[in-house]
Amino acid sequence: MAEIVWCVPNFSEGRRKDVIDRITAEVSAVEGVKLLGADPDPDHNRVVVSFTGTRKGVVEAAFRTVARARELIDLNEHEGEHPRMGATDVVPFVPVQGVTMNDCVEVAKEVGERIGNELDIPVYLYEKAATRPERENLANVRKGQFEGLRELIGKDPDRAPDYGPDHIHPTAGSVAVGARMPLIAYNVNLGTDDVNIAKTIAKSVRHLSGGYRHVKAMGFKIKERGIVQVSMNLVNYKQSPIFRVQETIRREAARYGVTVVGAEVVGLVPMEALVETAKWYLQLEDFQDEQVLENRIWE
Amino acid sequence: MAEIVWCVPNFSEGRRKDVIDRITAEVSAVEGVKLLGADPDPDHNRVVVSFTGTRKGVVEAAFRTVARARELIDLNEHEGEHPRMGATDVVPFVPVQGVTMNDCVEVAKEVGERIGNELDIPVYLYEKAATRPERENLANVRKGQFEGLRELIGKDPDRAPDYGPDHIHPTAGSVAVGARMPLIAYNVNLGTDDVNIAKTIAKSVRHLSGGYRHVKAMGFKIKERGIVQVSMNLVNYKQSPIFRVQETIRREAARYGVTVVGAEVVGLVPMEALVETAKWYLQLEDFQDEQVLENRIWE
Repeated sequence: MAEIVWCVPNFSEGRRKDVIDRITAEVSAVEGVKLLGADPDPDHNRVVVSFTGTRKGVVEAAFRTVARARELIDLNEHEGEHPRMGATDVVPFVPVQGVTMNDCVEVAKEVGERIGNELDIPVYLYEKAATRPERENLANVRKGQFEGLRELIGKDPDRAPDYGPDHIHPTAGSVAVGARMPLIAYNVNLGTDDVNIAKTIAKSVRHLSGGYRHVKAMGFKIKERGIVQVSMNLVNYKQSPIFRVQETIRREAARYGVTVVGAEVVGLVPMEALVETAKWYLQLEDFQDEQVLENRIWE
Repeated sequence: MAEIVWCVPNFSEGRRKDVIDRITAEVSAVEGVKLLGADPDPDHNRVVVSFTGTRKGVVEAAFRTVARARELIDLNEHEGEHPRMGATDVVPFVPVQGVTMNDCVEVAKEVGERIGNELDIPVYLYEKAATRPERENLANVRKGQFEGLRELIGKDPDRAPDYGPDHIHPTAGSVAVGARMPLIAYNVNLGTDDVNIAKTIAKSVRHLSGGYRHVKAMGFKIKERGIVQVSMNLVNYKQSPIFRVQETIRREAARYGVTVVGAEVVGLVPMEALVETAKWYLQLEDFQDEQVLENRIWE
């Protein structure tokens, strides 16, 4: 199968369309890379860009977007609600097909090194690419944001970058580069208007309160439908898979005489997460990925 | 999404590797077409070739393989267990992505017309491309095989070809060209050694005896595992989907106190059949195909 790495960099510009266009143009210019889209948020003044390609392709495309953002975005003039530490704020690489998480860690390090050396921007490796345990959590890396980091780099050894200079870039700030699993935004709807049931079930499946390791969950009321929802982020669908989480919610709801009335995937989901779900419910024996016709066509 | 037609022609040669290689080489030579494989069967003296491409691509590739088989295979010298009527025996086109069944019927007609006009081989349209109801069933089209058809074409009006001459080709015979859904070979294993339960359940789900319209089923014993199996061909997974058939089998088995212990897909399965299965079991609301990451990458 062809190798596919998914890259989802976030840039600190969600308002000036020409700037966003010039950043995404860098992606389209690289061979073997496909731009999936750009999702600007004017309130956060931030854009999420999404592209896929080979390891070699995404290294080049990611580097070029960071270089272009450094040229076009000045963090000193940036206002927006979302915490940020750089013109390019985060650059996560996600394994999709024919590549491992370790491959994506290597990709992150290669891009990080180039950004540090060639663009003079300090780089922090995060999540699976982290070189220190506390940097696995992006919130720790970004703590203090642009303005705070400006004072700390070069003084606080805990904030020393993995690559690049021991001082912040005066306009482009710093960049977090990492590797992670695809995140699935997944909600389960329950046939009751009692939000406490959703909240209680959210607690029972989420990691924070003793549930599945890779599940973040909250309970909400969906007023217009008169039902409630367990709203989740599944941050590792291989280890904490959709079907297991859903069946646990179903069982917990049944304890209150409540049924699952529906579910929803928000945004993108890797094919593998759905294929694994079908395999589990159908009890498939010895099923190989190569048996999916599309995997043969696209290999 | 890019258009993908799947073509699975069968040729009456399963022993001479050089002949098979020269036929598949015709596929590889066409732009926009991907050879998935060739599966020769020496006992049947027959090879199943599998390739995908755009409508334009598969028309050209299919025509070229038929031309090459006409040159290399003499049916007068063909021996094998499988019924056959031509050097190229059947050429089915299957819609996979971005094309409808009607598109595949058009593809079949275009290829059929070219085979008739340019190669002087009589062509019968079958399954969804059939021009007479009795020709929907390939067995009716192939009745009498090469030797029988040689006597009937030009005499029996029921056997008049859709394209090409009103006589058989002296060495290449005739060809059946059609359009059909992908076929899923699907087996469900039951935790009992009583083969009568598998046979009874097979009857309850198969079309022939009152079951689902697009299901063919038989009951077997799997001696080495001490269990039994409902072995099926699902010939239209959209109208008679995997999950519904499996859940019916599960319910019928429960009536005997028997459980489903496993299931298997033999060969290839379209991604859509598994995605629909996941959607059904997860009770997904408003899920769009474009939410599958791979569909965005490959569009």
